[in-house]
Amino acid sequence: MLRYLNGGESHGKLLLAVVEGMPAGVPLTEAAVDLDLARRQKGYGRGGRMRIEQDRVEFVSGVRKGFTLGSPIGLLIANKDWKNWQEIMAVDPGPPARPAGDPAAERVVTKPRPGHADLVGAIKYAHTDIRNVLEKASARETAIRVAVGAAAKALLNEFGIALISHVREIGGIPAETSRMTFLEIRDATERSEVRCADATAAEKMIQKIREAKEKGDTLGGVFEVIVENVPIGLGSYSHWDRRLSARLAFALMSIQAMKGVEIGMGFEAARRFGSEVHDEIFYDESGRHFYRKTNNAGGFEGGITNGQPIVIRTAMKPISTLYSPLKSVDIKTKEPFEATVERSDICTVPAAGVIGEAVVAWELAAAMVEKFGGDSLSEMKRNYDGYRDYVKNW
Amino acid sequence: MLRYLNGGESHGKLLLAVVEGMPAGVPLTEAAVDLDLARRQKGYGRGGRMRIEQDRVEFVSGVRKGFTLGSPIGLLIANKDWKNWQEIMAVDPGPPARPAGDPAAERVVTKPRPGHADLVGAIKYAHTDIRNVLEKASARETAIRVAVGAAAKALLNEFGIALISHVREIGGIPAETSRMTFLEIRDATERSEVRCADATAAEKMIQKIREAKEKGDTLGGVFEVIVENVPIGLGSYSHWDRRLSARLAFALMSIQAMKGVEIGMGFEAARRFGSEVHDEIFYDESGRHFYRKTNNAGGFEGGITNGQPIVIRTAMKPISTLYSPLKSVDIKTKEPFEATVERSDICTVPAAGVIGEAVVAWELAAAMVEKFGGDSLSEMKRNYDGYRDYVKNW
Amino acid sequence: MLRYLNGGESHGKLLLAVVEGMPAGVPLTEAAVDLDLARRQKGYGRGGRMRIEQDRVEFVSGVRKGFTLGSPIGLLIANKDWKNWQEIMAVDPGPPARPAGDPAAERVVTKPRPGHADLVGAIKYAHTDIRNVLEKASARETAIRVAVGAAAKALLNEFGIALISHVREIGGIPAETSRMTFLEIRDATERSEVRCADATAAEKMIQKIREAKEKGDTLGGVFEVIVENVPIGLGSYSHWDRRLSARLAFALMSIQAMKGVEIGMGFEAARRFGSEVHDEIFYDESGRHFYRKTNNAGGFEGGITNGQPIVIRTAMKPISTLYSPLKSVDIKTKEPFEATVERSDICTVPAAGVIGEAVVAWELAAAMVEKFGGDSLSEMKRNYDGYRDYVKNW
Amino acid sequence: MLRYLNGGESHGKLLLAVVEGMPAGVPLTEAAVDLDLARRQKGYGRGGRMRIEQDRVEFVSGVRKGFTLGSPIGLLIANKDWKNWQEIMAVDPGPPARPAGDPAAERVVTKPRPGHADLVGAIKYAHTDIRNVLEKASARETAIRVAVGAAAKALLNEFGIALISHVREIGGIPAETSRMTFLEIRDATERSEVRCADATAAEKMIQKIREAKEKGDTLGGVFEVIVENVPIGLGSYSHWDRRLSARLAFALMSIQAMKGVEIGMGFEAARRFGSEVHDEIFYDESGRHFYRKTNNAGGFEGGITNGQPIVIRTAMKPISTLYSPLKSVDIKTKEPFEATVERSDICTVPAAGVIGEAVVAWELAAAMVEKFGGDSLSEMKRNYDGYRDYVKNW
Repeated sequence: MLRYLNGGESHGKLLLAVVEGMPAGVPLTEAAVDLDLARRQKGYGRGGRMRIEQDRVEFVSGVRKGFTLGSPIGLLIANKDWKNWQEIMAVDPGPPARPAGDPAAERVVTKPRPGHADLVGAIKYAHTDIRNVLEKASARETAIRVAVGAAAKALLNEFGIALISHVREIGGIPAETSRMTFLEIRDATERSEVRCADATAAEKMIQKIREAKEKGDTLGGVFEVIVENVPIGLGSYSHWDRRLSARLAFALMSIQAMKGVEIGMGFEAARRFGSEVHDEIFYDESGRHFYRKTNNAGGFEGGITNGQPIVIRTAMKPISTLYSPLKSVDIKTKEPFEATVERSDICTVPAAGVIGEAVVAWELAAAMVEKFGGDSLSEMKRNYDGYRDYVKNW
Repeated sequence: MLRYLNGGESHGKLLLAVVEGMPAGVPLTEAAVDLDLARRQKGYGRGGRMRIEQDRVEFVSGVRKGFTLGSPIGLLIANKDWKNWQEIMAVDPGPPARPAGDPAAERVVTKPRPGHADLVGAIKYAHTDIRNVLEKASARETAIRVAVGAAAKALLNEFGIALISHVREIGGIPAETSRMTFLEIRDATERSEVRCADATAAEKMIQKIREAKEKGDTLGGVFEVIVENVPIGLGSYSHWDRRLSARLAFALMSIQAMKGVEIGMGFEAARRFGSEVHDEIFYDESGRHFYRKTNNAGGFEGGITNGQPIVIRTAMKPISTLYSPLKSVDIKTKEPFEATVERSDICTVPAAGVIGEAVVAWELAAAMVEKFGGDSLSEMKRNYDGYRDYVKNW
Repeated sequence: MLRYLNGGESHGKLLLAVVEGMPAGVPLTEAAVDLDLARRQKGYGRGGRMRIEQDRVEFVSGVRKGFTLGSPIGLLIANKDWKNWQEIMAVDPGPPARPAGDPAAERVVTKPRPGHADLVGAIKYAHTDIRNVLEKASARETAIRVAVGAAAKALLNEFGIALISHVREIGGIPAETSRMTFLEIRDATERSEVRCADATAAEKMIQKIREAKEKGDTLGGVFEVIVENVPIGLGSYSHWDRRLSARLAFALMSIQAMKGVEIGMGFEAARRFGSEVHDEIFYDESGRHFYRKTNNAGGFEGGITNGQPIVIRTAMKPISTLYSPLKSVDIKTKEPFEATVERSDICTVPAAGVIGEAVVAWELAAAMVEKFGGDSLSEMKRNYDGYRDYVKNW
Repeated sequence: MLRYLNGGESHGKLLLAVVEGMPAGVPLTEAAVDLDLARRQKGYGRGGRMRIEQDRVEFVSGVRKGFTLGSPIGLLIANKDWKNWQEIMAVDPGPPARPAGDPAAERVVTKPRPGHADLVGAIKYAHTDIRNVLEKASARETAIRVAVGAAAKALLNEFGIALISHVREIGGIPAETSRMTFLEIRDATERSEVRCADATAAEKMIQKIREAKEKGDTLGGVFEVIVENVPIGLGSYSHWDRRLSARLAFALMSIQAMKGVEIGMGFEAARRFGSEVHDEIFYDESGRHFYRKTNNAGGFEGGITNGQPIVIRTAMKPISTLYSPLKSVDIKTKEPFEATVERSDICTVPAAGVIGEAVVAWELAAAMVEKFGGDSLSEMKRNYDGYRDYVKNW
């Protein structure tokens, strides 16, 4: 069973995670993870902080000489800005409380921002300083999830399973990619400032982001994750919580600011006749295998992978912090105020796609470990190869 | 921690579940569960089987004299049709295999239906008789999930938490309910043959279902679950898998045939400016509480309930079994065929809403038990009341 | 991942369990389970109830034509005495409370028995009728655990893994079996009224039980579970909760009335020099494999199976309900009383061994599924065979 | 739900853990954790490495200004010796393999030590360098478990729950503490070089350790953990895996080198008549509460805490690495050799007791969080106080 826990405040010393259950012998380097960390930080529409950070992972356990050990993998990502926050975020109680008027004392946050966890988090955890909420609820956490996902990708890569993500919509502007191949989408996306494979749409998206910036506003959008070369049979209909399609929805909806998810034809399937939706089954006599001409199911039947590419889209709401502020109420004074800007991104949908890849990769890796077992990569591969041959001869 | 496991084949003797972690002292009767079982079986567009079943739950453990005991609750739902399937579904190996041509021998299913788990399930589990797949992958399983959800509702009811569901779309025909109250939607829905609160739309939906029936086709749609009187603070941003919004998405997407889910403004939020999306925060001086004028967030901030109604919609694809058959391939002979009808529902979106209520109720009950602890209802209520007073004075 | 939940009150209608995660294609019959249920009911020193019951399992899901389906296995065991308890244990609220003096009203239990969960259970769950506690806390629950364990054994059996249990001590009388083989112990035990492989000791144990009976007293003892043909490599040192040795201790200590557990040399190892304890490693040139001449470790190194037999002993306290009663206090009146007899077993250590086999079998089956993966028995065997060959050539 | 994962190799850069589910507002300082880390490193019979280390914890998340935040707590413990191991334990693949004869190349470990995970770990994980096993299987891991346990103690401390451990046996020499109070045992233990409260026995234990050292041998022993002021009602009989007594056995047996565990009277209970074992129940009219005159049950009935002190003993086998070596076989050459010393502790039972406290504290904290719920310490205390008052008036 693959599992992990992560921690870390946005302006704390570092983010960390412990990943348990990864087989031994999987090639894994910090450099590979750093590539995804860099991909997460790019994208038109980002504010200033991204330039500060330049995230780098450090493995502190579970990896030796370039291979996993089978023991828990410890990952750290330093917060580069930490030196400026050491006093505010100090672990120790420190000296007595400062007098009012002192700058540090004034860093106590009492103004909740609409659309954030600020107000509900403070009530839930009985915090009087909203900093204690926003430091954890912040999307900064996604950096460590991307690192964990990159480790999962390293495992998937050994089985030829490949993931990409691309932006399908920003601010209502759709991309048209239906005639592009997996590799075309991948390459066009990696070249695009907004990680959109449709260059024409990308240009309009950038325009829209500019417009939002001028208005002091923000934008959301939709990204799509596609996975190729997935074996038939991951997930199960045997118990509801083993449906892999549902687990992917769980993982994607757990990313900050996500408000919707759909698989394959998704919501559109709800509007069509059945005869327009279900993917008919054919048999290739020469290659001796079953195949489909369509993939409206997005790679799943009965919650189980069916060998078609997994296609899943996620809707992200606009960034909750705007230059042109929203109305709110101070939790201490109960006075109304206009919510100020803590950070200045306009649109982070491109980055969200990279995060989406990571969480999908994690769930797939967990499903692979569950189905194929094995404590070492060689054992897992032996099991996988046996199954692949079985499927071929089915 | 609230948890359960369920089992049961579609034409087996019965469905069953064991629910563990329910506090002692919760009023719970079979009659209350049967109400939801009956609601699940209604709805225009259902085929013949629903009339056979008339599901009834039987508690076989964990409930005594009308109250939960704190011990695991055992639930059974008999399959009324079982007597006709006893031989085919027999547990014991029975007499030697029958000769070809024998009717029972011919009940071996080798023809996978597109859109079902049939093909992938047979490959995954190495079954040569697809009956071994379809019996479990069938939506018949949702009956026991509704029963488990009804037990969860009994707990929620003690805290004044109320759930409804209603159909928002069938076959592309939308319902308009934006100006209706919670109670108006509930009452109109319960009166509607398609569980749609907008009577005009309901009429068109019925027309559309008739049209589909005539074409030998099927329809999907969208249902919405709304929950009122949810306390602030269920779920958490502290770890990704504790975000209650994501857990609801997990649960809803785990229902057979669901292809998308969205919370609050959902996918539409991805198309708007931030200033149009985030719910501003206000303070009522007289009532001394925070409030919102909008609920675009659908009841969640940071994955935590914010005291607003939970609003979540789920997209269901059309029923996968059509009168006008789909192309497929026999798994034994590898000959193409046209997939035949195993059951004859045209549209089950109304029932899906009731199932949706059940799985949402379960997740909320689990979140309540996690936050408020307590081994008896009286202890849990004492804890809840203390928190409610704390929130009032916050 | 193999998991299960069980439920059922001691005098309720039935006991039930749902077992999830068993691979498809495992041969499994009710008759095989009934054998272990019968073994659990035997043993010198049992009181009257055992004769009533004659437990039989019924599979209601997950098994068809003698093989598992890969879907959850539902198991029921009827409580034969149920007809006499229907009113007292009724699920429904029933008619209004009876007047004092009415026999049924007097079945409310307010007298907690020392050594049982009676008092603490009533406080924890806010019960005023201790029946609500004792019905679940009762060792009657072990019948369903034995049934679940028998299903686990069916899986283990496919891999040649064999479990036995035998009584090592009753009332301080030790058995001497150090020179007996696995099969000798098994056969002698199955023939013994007290499930003790040492016939001389068995005779003394029976005498001691007679003595206890005459005194109106009860006895405990120690049983040992031995497992042969366990593959090297189950469990892991990689995270504390994956040590299989510790998981076995967990499972055994979770059986009612168990107060201690030890593996291999156990507590005695704590009293010896290291040079007397650790099992040296040798290599057989001709058979080309590593071996040991001793098994003080009891089959585990680093919490992982090392290919040696698993040997684990569990200490059971005497039955808590005595003919010669213990002092206690009525929870309603707060008056002292002398605790009366609810059941009349003198010693159930022989039965406890059978239960011990069951819980050990479960943990081993779970560890096998985790290591070897696979959704069908054929897939799991293919993986296992590959690993076995790898170990041979190591 | 309280949960954690930990990682870290013995000679890696650091040990780390992520603790999730701790309520907000719990006072927690690194200094408090360091006290327990220091207690773990003391004890007569330790070898050289302990002097190097002087473990210090660093909180890197989840704690601010001396209080927990409710977010995951990240803990690091640096391995002081890391600088000498950087090349051998390097994460990156590094330069090409060194020629034979090169010292670094020769650090490849191919000689498995009896009693360690060396051989089975290498087989399980397909490692050819046993270093990849011993680095994780090492008891060095217990340092981070002690740190996690210290955080758990910080929570328990807020509820007045106090834990101690003391050595009951070393090398067969028993301590007599039956007439000492909790505080007397605690104070005498903390003063003792072998953490034994019986000064006479302690002297003999030290003699025995000296003797073992002279012989080049090692010793094990038995330690006891005692917990006072535990509320009635932690754990449950409702499902086997919720019995807190069994969970404690799980946790203690998961510590490296533990071979047995017993609660209260333990194995001795198996040798007595029931009338000598069960703790009778009395009622104090003036104080209006139930009480016992004995605690043979060790604080548990039905797997639930009964308000009596928890008393649990664990048997540790002798250290597996001896100066006078054990026979073994090289995994590469298959040549026999005599197992060499990697470290030089003679007896670590005193330290094991401190580790035992930690794992018991963790399970109790988890049980407290489960029963009392609450996201902040103030909420948890409010719930606890309500329950305490209820129990008083029961």
